[in-house]
Amino acid sequence: MRTAAPVLLTPGPLTTSARTRQAMNLDWGSWDEAFNQLTASLCEQLLAIVNGADSHHCVPLQGSGTFAVEAAIGTLVPRNGKVLVLINGAYGKRLAKICEVLGRSFSTFETAEDEPTSAADVERLLRADPTVSHVALIHCETSTGILNPLAEIAEVVARHGKRLIIDAMSSFGALPIDARQVPFDALIAASGKCLEGVPGMGLVFARKEALAAAAGNSHSLAMDLHDQHAYMAKTGQWRFTPPTHVVAALHEALLQYHEEGGLPARLGRYADNCQVLLEEMARLGLRSFLPAAIQAPIIVTFHAPQDPHYQFKAFYERVKAKGFILYPGKLTRVETFRVGCIGQVGRSTMQAAVAAIAEALREMEVLDI
Amino acid sequence: MRTAAPVLLTPGPLTTSARTRQAMNLDWGSWDEAFNQLTASLCEQLLAIVNGADSHHCVPLQGSGTFAVEAAIGTLVPRNGKVLVLINGAYGKRLAKICEVLGRSFSTFETAEDEPTSAADVERLLRADPTVSHVALIHCETSTGILNPLAEIAEVVARHGKRLIIDAMSSFGALPIDARQVPFDALIAASGKCLEGVPGMGLVFARKEALAAAAGNSHSLAMDLHDQHAYMAKTGQWRFTPPTHVVAALHEALLQYHEEGGLPARLGRYADNCQVLLEEMARLGLRSFLPAAIQAPIIVTFHAPQDPHYQFKAFYERVKAKGFILYPGKLTRVETFRVGCIGQVGRSTMQAAVAAIAEALREMEVLDI
Ligand SMILES: Cc1ncc(COP(=O)(O)O)c(C=O)c1O
Ligand SMILES: Cc1ncc(COP(=O)(O)O)c(C=O)c1O
Repeated sequence: MRTAAPVLLTPGPLTTSARTRQAMNLDWGSWDEAFNQLTASLCEQLLAIVNGADSHHCVPLQGSGTFAVEAAIGTLVPRNGKVLVLINGAYGKRLAKICEVLGRSFSTFETAEDEPTSAADVERLLRADPTVSHVALIHCETSTGILNPLAEIAEVVARHGKRLIIDAMSSFGALPIDARQVPFDALIAASGKCLEGVPGMGLVFARKEALAAAAGNSHSLAMDLHDQHAYMAKTGQWRFTPPTHVVAALHEALLQYHEEGGLPARLGRYADNCQVLLEEMARLGLRSFLPAAIQAPIIVTFHAPQDPHYQFKAFYERVKAKGFILYPGKLTRVETFRVGCIGQVGRSTMQAAVAAIAEALREMEVLDI
Repeated sequence: MRTAAPVLLTPGPLTTSARTRQAMNLDWGSWDEAFNQLTASLCEQLLAIVNGADSHHCVPLQGSGTFAVEAAIGTLVPRNGKVLVLINGAYGKRLAKICEVLGRSFSTFETAEDEPTSAADVERLLRADPTVSHVALIHCETSTGILNPLAEIAEVVARHGKRLIIDAMSSFGALPIDARQVPFDALIAASGKCLEGVPGMGLVFARKEALAAAAGNSHSLAMDLHDQHAYMAKTGQWRFTPPTHVVAALHEALLQYHEEGGLPARLGRYADNCQVLLEEMARLGLRSFLPAAIQAPIIVTFHAPQDPHYQFKAFYERVKAKGFILYPGKLTRVETFRVGCIGQVGRSTMQAAVAAIAEALREMEVLDI
């Protein structure tokens, strides 16, 4: 059994608290009332984060975040619907791929990886193609860390009478989204991101009327969110075996979320992590890929040093040996690496991580940054 | 945080060892080499259990067992295939439902809940319908605990040149299945059953040639086992975020599986649990639903007492207060309840559980058993 625990500066799985992990030190009967209460409490707390109790259902789903995204599209987009997919990175591309595999009509609109989709773009696209029924958007595109203007886009989509599907996987819980102000049919999140649980389940906040009308849409039994919700509403139980320990960990993580001060506190801490990271890295000469105005405080993409001594794998191993796990870049055109700002970490950890990065670069004799 | 821990006598989630749960007390980077090694070691150990290293790939999948069953059918049955589904309980019915939702042609053959499907039945059915391409079978039908004659059926299926898909969710790791003797295209298992891990991932052992030929079959992106395997073979990583803590727990559970003595020891312990349970319950006058010859040592269905004082919910609560979680019956015709024989429990726990059951019935003044 491994016992050393490097700090994960990755965008999920991330560093969780000891208390959250200890909540997994118990087995739960998935049919037992005590476990049903855990699930119910989870959904209630999650809906409160988006002010969605009146308008939306929280539908938890086994599997990784992608499973929840696919389930949302498969369940909420009717078979004769058409999805406009807004892309500026890998997760936007994955949305389009899901539509393709599921056989849902779709069109795509792609901007550069450092250019947010604008509300004006969406306005123009919806005018040009009235057959679009749904718009799908990545809130924080984790492949760079770019923030797309959700509220403005949601306003345009609603004004055109279209439905919005938001992949908020890496932003939910940290960046504010208010269901009373931002109209959406589905908002997708996961246990192992800004809520600081462990990975293993997704979450879809589905508009009540949209979900009620979605019976029979799904291409899948396991990913049918209509059935998943109907069964849970009737029995209090998950339709198929839940990842009990993951659920217990998320519940414990949510208690800590509230104790910390809820979303404003979580956002405050992450924003501080991000700022410290950007400042200290800048002092080393490491430049961030995105301008500050469109940088979400979730994950930062840095240009790799120019120096021929630099090589990501060796750099990664050295930083890991000093106790920090970084994330590779996901851009094809430029060489980059990424550092997450999320998880159970604060400014002192970010400072220590940058010190480790500096040391690793020195050891590698990387001078030309 | 709850701290009392009743023993789960349920067929997954079940009682795990403290050591297995403690393996979750660490965060793993899903991109990190140490985690890739964990996954590779897991697959290697799992393949060895079925002697499948030469013939099959082990494809792990996020989600509950049903996700893995759906993935196996969606990936391995071509869109123009036809599945003969053998049914004698709820999980067999679910197989048929999956075929229906996925739009795969299928026919069903149903026997009573206390009657195994026979090889002769399958012989006759395959002769009568040459359009069948795949046969799908539940090994141990957990809704009663009945054992279907896998080896005999596999022989008939192979002789007809058809492909076999085995849902071995509740038997894998305890009942022997040898890939060198039993031909199958897919064998489906999960982390939280006889391997004594925690729930959260499924496992599909897929015949190498069948998987290689399955590109493009899948109805789903997330459940495409061909892509899941291809990505893992190329990168060593999971295609989408793995349930890292569930993987770590399963790995630790497998180490203990081998230390205990592998499959023979696991089977021995469960068989002993089952026998003790049957004997002690018989002494109370509680009759098992299945005859011994077709009872798998996984879970036992008992007839509910006749006494009007008996009521499952009250009974369940009383037994739970004494430290044991039972499982409700799943039969529609007769009132029953179930007791699992699997998990990190031995004969003394089974004896204590039966003592708790006896006490609960006495307290409820249930006399007519
Ligand atoms: C924006 C976004 N969408 C989707 C996903 C996919 O989630 P998963 O890897 O859990 O399937 C991620 C994962 O990081 C993400 O950041
Ligand atoms: C034989 C069998 N098949 C399928 C399943 C479904 O698995 P899950 O509940 O994990 O989706 C089970 C679960 O107990 C089972 O016993």
